Amino acid sequence: MTPDQIADLDRNDPLAGFRERFDLPEGVIYLDGNSLGALPKATAERVAAVVQEQWGADLIRSWNTHNWIGAPRRLGDKIARLIGANPGEVICADSTSVNVFKALSACLQLTPERSIILSETGNFPTDAYMMEGLAHLTSGRVEQKLVASETIAAHLDETVAALLLTHTHYKTGRLHDMAALTAKAQAAGIPVIWDLSHSAGALPVDLNGCNADFAVGCGYKYLNGGPGAPAFLFAAARHHDKVFPALSGWLGHKAPFAFSDHYEPGTGIDRFQCGTPGILGMAALESGLDLMLEADMQAIRAKSQALGDLFIALIEARCPQFELVTPRDCRARGSQVSIAHDQGYAIMQALIDRGVIGDFRAPDILRFGFTPLYTRYRDVADAVDILADIMDQDSWTAPQYAVRAAVT
Amino acid sequence: MTPDQIADLDRNDPLAGFRERFDLPEGVIYLDGNSLGALPKATAERVAAVVQEQWGADLIRSWNTHNWIGAPRRLGDKIARLIGANPGEVICADSTSVNVFKALSACLQLTPERSIILSETGNFPTDAYMMEGLAHLTSGRVEQKLVASETIAAHLDETVAALLLTHTHYKTGRLHDMAALTAKAQAAGIPVIWDLSHSAGALPVDLNGCNADFAVGCGYKYLNGGPGAPAFLFAAARHHDKVFPALSGWLGHKAPFAFSDHYEPGTGIDRFQCGTPGILGMAALESGLDLMLEADMQAIRAKSQALGDLFIALIEARCPQFELVTPRDCRARGSQVSIAHDQGYAIMQALIDRGVIGDFRAPDILRFGFTPLYTRYRDVADAVDILADIMDQDSWTAPQYAVRAAVT
Repeated sequence: MTPDQIADLDRNDPLAGFRERFDLPEGVIYLDGNSLGALPKATAERVAAVVQEQWGADLIRSWNTHNWIGAPRRLGDKIARLIGANPGEVICADSTSVNVFKALSACLQLTPERSIILSETGNFPTDAYMMEGLAHLTSGRVEQKLVASETIAAHLDETVAALLLTHTHYKTGRLHDMAALTAKAQAAGIPVIWDLSHSAGALPVDLNGCNADFAVGCGYKYLNGGPGAPAFLFAAARHHDKVFPALSGWLGHKAPFAFSDHYEPGTGIDRFQCGTPGILGMAALESGLDLMLEADMQAIRAKSQALGDLFIALIEARCPQFELVTPRDCRARGSQVSIAHDQGYAIMQALIDRGVIGDFRAPDILRFGFTPLYTRYRDVADAVDILADIMDQDSWTAPQYAVRAAVT
Repeated sequence: MTPDQIADLDRNDPLAGFRERFDLPEGVIYLDGNSLGALPKATAERVAAVVQEQWGADLIRSWNTHNWIGAPRRLGDKIARLIGANPGEVICADSTSVNVFKALSACLQLTPERSIILSETGNFPTDAYMMEGLAHLTSGRVEQKLVASETIAAHLDETVAALLLTHTHYKTGRLHDMAALTAKAQAAGIPVIWDLSHSAGALPVDLNGCNADFAVGCGYKYLNGGPGAPAFLFAAARHHDKVFPALSGWLGHKAPFAFSDHYEPGTGIDRFQCGTPGILGMAALESGLDLMLEADMQAIRAKSQALGDLFIALIEARCPQFELVTPRDCRARGSQVSIAHDQGYAIMQALIDRGVIGDFRAPDILRFGFTPLYTRYRDVADAVDILADIMDQDSWTAPQYAVRAAVT
C-alpha cells in the first residue's frame, strides 16, 4: 500500500468524524483502547458538571433531581442497544468480576442438581478465579472445570451447571461462535454466561438473537467509560424471577427505602443491583455510551476488520520476525491483533517509547487494539513503520527495555 | 442561648477554618452530610486532573505512572488512620454491601463448624440483606438470625459463626460499645464485623484497640468521597492468611498480571480486592480523606457532641411536638440527632423547601447530621428557628408536602 492509498482509506472512512470527538494526546498512536478506551471530549465537562452542579450544589437532592438513582438501569438500557438485549435486561453496576459472581450463582439456581462450572483454560483469569471462590464458599456444592477451548463442546453434558466463556479472547482475539455454543449448551440443559469485555462496543453482539442466558462486560475498554468504569450484567428476562440474588444488597430490594428487615428481590433486572452506584464513574461511562450510540455498529465492525487486515498485511510484509496469534480470517476475531515474539516485552517497551502504545501479555504476546472511532488507517501504517524500524535497528535490545514495570 | 452566645461558639471553634475548604451552596443549611458528605473544594480540580491529565493524556500508562494500581491500598492506609487500624489492614474497594459479603464469608472460614450469622433487627438493611443472599447461596450452611439490639449479648453462644453490627445506628444514632461487645463475642469464639458507615470520620474509632476482627464502611458520608464513593474493608492482620476470599477476583491474586489459570490469594489485605478499581471515584474519595486527615479527630468529636447537644436543647425549648429518638447522652450517640413526629415526612419536605436539608426515615423520623468540618453552631440555631416557624405556622400541612418522591 502506498501512502496515497492509505490516505484514501481515511478520506473515505464513514467514521472519520468521530476521531475529533476524542481528546487524544499529540505524538501518540494509541492501539490500546481494548484495555483502556480513550477520553471522549464531552466526558470532562460531563464529569465536572456532576461534581460541581449535582454533588456540590444540589447535594443529596440529586438522587432524585438528577436521577442518580436511575443511573444503573438507564446506562444498562443504553448498553443493551449495543449487545442485542432488550430494555430492562441489563444493569450497569459493580465490576466485571462481581458480576461474574452474580451470574454464576444465578446459574446454580437454574440447575440445582448439577455441580460442574465449566470454562476454558487460558480464559481471562478473573472468570476462572471467581469460579474458584464460589466453589470454595459453597464447600463442594460446585466444582470448577477448565478444558481446552477446542474441547468445550465435548464437555457439555448433564453434570454441567453453567458454562462461562469469554466471547472475544483477551489475548488472542479469537471469537467464539456465540449462537452455536449457546444452542449446544442449552440442548444439554446448561445456561451460558458470556463475558463480553472484549466484545461490547467492538463488534455487533446479538445476545437475544443467540437466546443467551447471562452476560457480563466491562465499561472501560471499547465503551470508553474511563479507568475502572462500572461494569454490566445481562440476564435474559425469562430468568429474572427465578433468581434470588447471591449479592442481595439494598438497592436490589423491591423497596429499598422501606428499610425493612428482610430482603425481597426487586422487579426484573433491578434485583441484580447490590450497593450504591458510583455516580462519578457512571457519568463518565454514560458519556462514552452516548458517543458510541451515535455510530453505526456495522460500520464499526467493517472498519475494525479492515484495520486488522491492513495491520496483518503490513506486519507480514515488513516484520517477518513475528508470529501471528490472532485468526487471520477477520470474521473469526474481535477488534485486536496479537503477534508473538520471544522478546515481546522489550519490543513493546521500545515501541511505547516511540509513541506507539499497545500492550504486552505474558509470555510473548504483543497486543494491538483497533478502535474504529478514533484509530485511522494511517495510524496502523505508521505503527508498523515504527515497529519495522525498531526491529531493523535492534533498538529494543537497549537495557532499559528489559526491566518490567509492576504493571504491564 | 442568645445569638451572641452562638456567635461566640463559632468564633472559638478550632475547626472553623475547615468550612471554607468546602463548596457549599448559598442559602442552604446542610444537615445531611451523614448521608452524602459535601464537596471539598479541592475535589473538583483533583477529579478533573485525573480525567484530563491522567486518563486523557497518559492513558493506559497511568496505571503505573500515576499509581492507579496502588489506589485501593493507598486509600485504605489513609482510612486506617481514621479508624484505629494499621497500614495494610484496610482496602478501599467495591461497595459497603459487597464488602459485607466478603467479611461474612471470611468469618465462615474462621468458624467452620458454626451456622448462625447474627445481627439486630432494625439494622441498616443492606447488612441483613447480604446475610440472606449468603444463606441462600450456601443452601442451609448458614442461617440468619436477627434479634433485638438489647438482647444481642444473650445470643452470643457457640452456635454463632459471625456477629454483624452497625456501630452507629443509621436511624437513631445510637452507638454500640464496640470494645465490650467484641470482647464478649470473642469470648464465645465469635468473630465480629463492625459496619462503620455512620462512624468513620464522625468520631474516633479504635478497631485495634478493641481487637476487632473485621469492619466495613462507606466513603460517601462523613468521609466526603462523593456520591457512591468506593467503600472499605478492614481485616485484622491476624486473619489475612486464613481466608480464601469468596470474591476471588483477579486484582486479589498474588500476581494479577501473570494471568495464570488458578487463583492464589494475594499477600495480606490485597487478597480482599476483587475487580478493577473505579479510579474517578477513588480520586474524589482521596481528596476527601486528605482533607479529613488534616483535622484532629478529638476536636471533631467534641464539636459534634456540642452541636448535637445544642440542637437537642433548642428543639426541646422551641419544638415540643417532637420526640427525641437519639440518646441524650452525647457519649452514647454518633454525629446525628433524630427526632420523631407522625407527620415527619411532610415536615421534612417543608424544611427542605426553606433551605434546611435533613432527611426522613420511615415511619416517622427526621434525621439531622452534624458534620463538624462544615457545620456551624449558627447553622444549628438557624435550622431550629426555621423548624419552629414551620411548626408555628403549620406550613408543613400544604398539600405538596404530602406526596412522597421516589427516593426519600
